[in-house]
Amino acid sequence: MNYSEMTKVQLAEELGKLKIEYSNICEKGLSLDLSRGKPAADQLSLSDGMLTCISSADDCKTEAGFDCRNYGLFDGIPEAKKLFSDLLGIPQNYIFVGGSSSLNLMYDSVARAMLYGVYGSEKPWCREEKVKFVCPVPGYDRHFKICESLGIEMINVDMISTGPDMDAVEALVANDASIKGIWCCPKYSNPDGITYSGETVRRLARMKTAAPDFRIMWDNAYAVHDLCDDGDELLDIFEACREVGNEDRVLYFASTSKITYSGAGVAILAADENNLKQIKSVMTAQTISFDKINQLRHVKFFGNADGVRAHMKKHAALLAPKFKLVLDKLEQDLASVGIGKWTNPRGGYFVSLFVPAGCAKRTFELAKSAGVTLTTVGATYPYGKDPADSNIRIAPTFANMENLSAAMDVLTLCVRLATIEKMLAE
Amino acid sequence: MNYSEMTKVQLAEELGKLKIEYSNICEKGLSLDLSRGKPAADQLSLSDGMLTCISSADDCKTEAGFDCRNYGLFDGIPEAKKLFSDLLGIPQNYIFVGGSSSLNLMYDSVARAMLYGVYGSEKPWCREEKVKFVCPVPGYDRHFKICESLGIEMINVDMISTGPDMDAVEALVANDASIKGIWCCPKYSNPDGITYSGETVRRLARMKTAAPDFRIMWDNAYAVHDLCDDGDELLDIFEACREVGNEDRVLYFASTSKITYSGAGVAILAADENNLKQIKSVMTAQTISFDKINQLRHVKFFGNADGVRAHMKKHAALLAPKFKLVLDKLEQDLASVGIGKWTNPRGGYFVSLFVPAGCAKRTFELAKSAGVTLTTVGATYPYGKDPADSNIRIAPTFANMENLSAAMDVLTLCVRLATIEKMLAE
Repeated sequence: MNYSEMTKVQLAEELGKLKIEYSNICEKGLSLDLSRGKPAADQLSLSDGMLTCISSADDCKTEAGFDCRNYGLFDGIPEAKKLFSDLLGIPQNYIFVGGSSSLNLMYDSVARAMLYGVYGSEKPWCREEKVKFVCPVPGYDRHFKICESLGIEMINVDMISTGPDMDAVEALVANDASIKGIWCCPKYSNPDGITYSGETVRRLARMKTAAPDFRIMWDNAYAVHDLCDDGDELLDIFEACREVGNEDRVLYFASTSKITYSGAGVAILAADENNLKQIKSVMTAQTISFDKINQLRHVKFFGNADGVRAHMKKHAALLAPKFKLVLDKLEQDLASVGIGKWTNPRGGYFVSLFVPAGCAKRTFELAKSAGVTLTTVGATYPYGKDPADSNIRIAPTFANMENLSAAMDVLTLCVRLATIEKMLAE
Repeated sequence: MNYSEMTKVQLAEELGKLKIEYSNICEKGLSLDLSRGKPAADQLSLSDGMLTCISSADDCKTEAGFDCRNYGLFDGIPEAKKLFSDLLGIPQNYIFVGGSSSLNLMYDSVARAMLYGVYGSEKPWCREEKVKFVCPVPGYDRHFKICESLGIEMINVDMISTGPDMDAVEALVANDASIKGIWCCPKYSNPDGITYSGETVRRLARMKTAAPDFRIMWDNAYAVHDLCDDGDELLDIFEACREVGNEDRVLYFASTSKITYSGAGVAILAADENNLKQIKSVMTAQTISFDKINQLRHVKFFGNADGVRAHMKKHAALLAPKFKLVLDKLEQDLASVGIGKWTNPRGGYFVSLFVPAGCAKRTFELAKSAGVTLTTVGATYPYGKDPADSNIRIAPTFANMENLSAAMDVLTLCVRLATIEKMLAE
């Protein structure tokens, strides 16, 4: 029976039952974690061939004979550029191959803009009175932390089923020259799992921006991270921008952190010639070169882009049952009583749960006391503030099936508890 | 016979002979490079065991059982901290283990100071009217590039046999609050190969600085890079600062770039608790973690600090003959005619040659035309300007003995040519 159809007396009775269930669970002394988008050990083991595919000095040479053990090739080895180019459909000469962290490349890109500006800036952004970024919400906490750390003001825009609410985005960026950028996780977005529609990509590409040096931070973190055979298709942002003469607008990021090893992957930044020239002119003061042997490891391990695609099917085989379990639990325990809504992602790393407004923090606290760590409520919003106190990001990947099941039981129980408490208090 | 004792007629005669020699060499079509401090392939091969010392998932665990393939431990694995701690005599809790490039950590440290300030700053350095750094000269071009890139004004101070001319340094930093830092390569300095005396280190530690947030950028790039059995001893800068209550003053950098692989080493930043706390608070927005598997590779390959020390003796065995060859050639070809002076380093990567004032650029051009690339003249000074046009950095490591010998013949010939040309023009 739907909670909304219950009388207060019925709700109170239900609350009593749930409290007993809750207190029984608390006694178990669980210690479970649904908070971070980390791959599980079985996923990491899919890439253990990387540890042995380079085992001698001869293996350390590029095709052109460059010794990757030494300094040089600061923008990456040609073979790694080709691999990412083929995999992501980005021109090879757009690609800069970095270290293991795309977050590092993103932070550095914003910090660099603060210190130097971007291609086309009149001055460094830190000389502007104010700098703002549009932040589709819910979104990725670490994008928001970059802005917060660098003093960039964030403006929330809702995610809808086609991506960011483009009516809102267009109205904002057209009229405020202090808005210098937007964070996008365009495929299987974190946390909603939404892939931007073709029209959304085209509108981002062609929209008028008051700032002449506006940048789309295109974090394609889940570019090849399908959970099903017919994964989503994302329109080529560079192509869309090229068609309308706005190719300078995009800084594109990706990595193998959730393809090979989260702790020892390879990250890239991609941008058109103008941006890349400015970026390299600064980076040449910043470093001599990144770890080229690890780049070569990736190239040798995969062989080519099809090798990566085949590898991602193995990830999907491990992850799909976990996502199904989460969705089944939500269906059984929450849909059955008519509360909450959630996404059913076809890829990526998260399920985004919206509990009744005002109930997310309470759910988090209840779960915590019962030994289940959830993503901090609010983390999916700038400044850690979810205006509706409603969104909970579920990360099903790290736990094994047994723990995931136990954790989901706690989570849905806590959602029900928090919801009834609130209904009774109203 | 010393050139200085020759008549103009004798000099002209000598010039004629040298020109014939030079034109013969030019006809050989040489292509040799003495410009960059890169290890040679035989040095890199000393570390090829690193490629195979981690070959399974089990090998990827820290002692405490942490899976280095995954996210986490953003300040480095404890084992790597311990290795650097034992090797360099730095407290383990001072150490942050990064990616492969200490230059990256240095650039980021200055950029971070610009954007946020350092521990104890009133405001970000970019909000100051002017920021200046003291630069001992000759010095490392990439230190200077960092300042130039970030708009930090550089003030030259001469290197003397005990390190930077401390009378000059003390006078500068005591009276100008816009001077926020000094670049130091304290052991086997780049390019002079000078190790700072104990008194220099103590004076750096205790000197009064007008800026309350002054930082010593302690780039201990050649900490264990002895060329002889009884290497130089460098006083512990942290200890010296601790004694006078100035421990906040130091940011310390080191790496294995010239221990294992230049292209795939491990770099560290070390600082006291106050600095490290502020640094980590920013870096937590910048990255999730660095490549921990590569950190573990280093730990497993070396075992402990003694393993590194034994390894460095193998480098010394390969490098000592090259340094001897360079010094022999300088002695034979330049000392014999009474021109030039140079250092006789007991470690590090360079020989610093001072040709007669006004002759360095001409020497560079002559060598270039003869097929020998030297370090760009001026690169060892801020803004690429050697006021005396005298210093040439010789990097003997990368070439093999035969090529090194041929390149040195060209170099000393060009020095003699340039010198006589100048003497005759005066």
